[in-house]
Amino acid sequence: MTRPLKKETMHLLVALDEGYIPQLSVLLTSIFINHPNDRFALYLLHRSLTPKALDFIRACCNKAMMEYYPIQVDQALFDEAPVNDRYPKEMYYRLLAPYFLPDDIEKVLYLDPDILVINSLSGLWNLNLDHALFAAAAHTGKTELSNNVNRIRLKTDHDYYNSGVLLMNLDQCRIEIRKEDIFRYVKEHGNELLLPDQDVLNALYGKRIEAVDDALWNYDARNYRNYLLRSGGVRDMRWVMQHTSILHFCGRAKPWKSGYRYRFGQIYQHYVQLTKRFLPDEWKGIAL
Amino acid sequence: MTRPLKKETMHLLVALDEGYIPQLSVLLTSIFINHPNDRFALYLLHRSLTPKALDFIRACCNKAMMEYYPIQVDQALFDEAPVNDRYPKEMYYRLLAPYFLPDDIEKVLYLDPDILVINSLSGLWNLNLDHALFAAAAHTGKTELSNNVNRIRLKTDHDYYNSGVLLMNLDQCRIEIRKEDIFRYVKEHGNELLLPDQDVLNALYGKRIEAVDDALWNYDARNYRNYLLRSGGVRDMRWVMQHTSILHFCGRAKPWKSGYRYRFGQIYQHYVQLTKRFLPDEWKGIAL
Repeated sequence: MTRPLKKETMHLLVALDEGYIPQLSVLLTSIFINHPNDRFALYLLHRSLTPKALDFIRACCNKAMMEYYPIQVDQALFDEAPVNDRYPKEMYYRLLAPYFLPDDIEKVLYLDPDILVINSLSGLWNLNLDHALFAAAAHTGKTELSNNVNRIRLKTDHDYYNSGVLLMNLDQCRIEIRKEDIFRYVKEHGNELLLPDQDVLNALYGKRIEAVDDALWNYDARNYRNYLLRSGGVRDMRWVMQHTSILHFCGRAKPWKSGYRYRFGQIYQHYVQLTKRFLPDEWKGIAL
Repeated sequence: MTRPLKKETMHLLVALDEGYIPQLSVLLTSIFINHPNDRFALYLLHRSLTPKALDFIRACCNKAMMEYYPIQVDQALFDEAPVNDRYPKEMYYRLLAPYFLPDDIEKVLYLDPDILVINSLSGLWNLNLDHALFAAAAHTGKTELSNNVNRIRLKTDHDYYNSGVLLMNLDQCRIEIRKEDIFRYVKEHGNELLLPDQDVLNALYGKRIEAVDDALWNYDARNYRNYLLRSGGVRDMRWVMQHTSILHFCGRAKPWKSGYRYRFGQIYQHYVQLTKRFLPDEWKGIAL
């Protein structure tokens, strides 16, 4: 860990389509409320968001006092990319983000939109990446079995990292990541890939990832009981509320849908309410 | 319900000693975060808080953009009051608050410090009290049995109201509430009283209370399952997060103590974290 001499702006990256805009607004609210003394800039990669959607996100950023940089991705970059129903062009946005972001940005924190921030991000942001490409977490809450299956499947000798939270060393990525390598890998392994972008991250760049503790920086919100048991009872609800910064609502069950049964639905749904009240009047009617 | 023509300041009342100051700071944080567009004034009744404690609360109010009016209660008022270990003078503060508060305040919302606010208070604040003395809620989450036991015990024919949340019609209270009546009742029934201030409220003024829905305005945080069952499954966690404004952590188990096992400990402990971060630097070290 390093300490910045002065507080710098934290650069955040998201990449999404129309369907995840309500969740993005909840994520931004959670970041704002949990960082009363920090500055943020949001970079949004998208293919074809409407002006209305882009305006809504601008209004959220204004409320959250964040800088806002929407970036429409040039589709010509993907002319040679293998693309089909299972692998849309958007799956490449994350890994190729170093080429879409301004050259003077050295570091960015990518976040999936199904995330809620409940404590400060500064500990992750200030991690010394040195020459690593990324910092990321493997989901230890999962069974060892699925971790091992993924190692064999992708022929890797490291944990299977979740790509939903990625601290990106952009300078280093611009040196090492080539879109041709990624396209080739997908062409050659297309049929074996289960979660294409995550599989590519692990197979091509897994050795170049600095591992961070998922219980702090990418907590799988389905797996409270596993975290608790694996920690010998230490990581109980109080521990999570005090230490975990990033709650990740991975998987099919989503806390904004009815019938969600996992326990962190409580805090997610509270942030939906906070978001509704924070929104500028002209956006109050949006379905969250 | 009435709608104010313009947004008025909501007047809040608390009465506490040194032991509940951390909880008060969490309560104030929760009110602030859940009311991005409302104005508040806090009246604090106390007997002998230290200047340091009063300064800390002032700092919390400043952060929460609330007006702050500490009021040291004149102990001479209680010269004739029956007082002993079980009935300290402080038990009279709540009911006699109409006489401690400025004459031009017509209405105040009293809140216990073991409360967390998770949605807007304006629906309760704007309730038309007409000539009622108070608005308050009975805890329907409890068994009917305990409600009936209390009716018989106090010889009342209404629900047993919880005194932790009281919207007070101060003008009407100044007409009807006499400290001599209260002192006399405690003298005559001292031995029968279980929760003295709450029993006095019910026995003397229970008929003059406007009942409000406890699931909205005084939710007993121990009783999620009862609320859920009594509502035929409607008042699930999502409903609570969307509708309940006041979570009341009644009883011995408290979410700021270790080993708290009820499910709303999650959101309470999150607000403890938010409070720690919101505090001005010079107060960051305070034990919350």
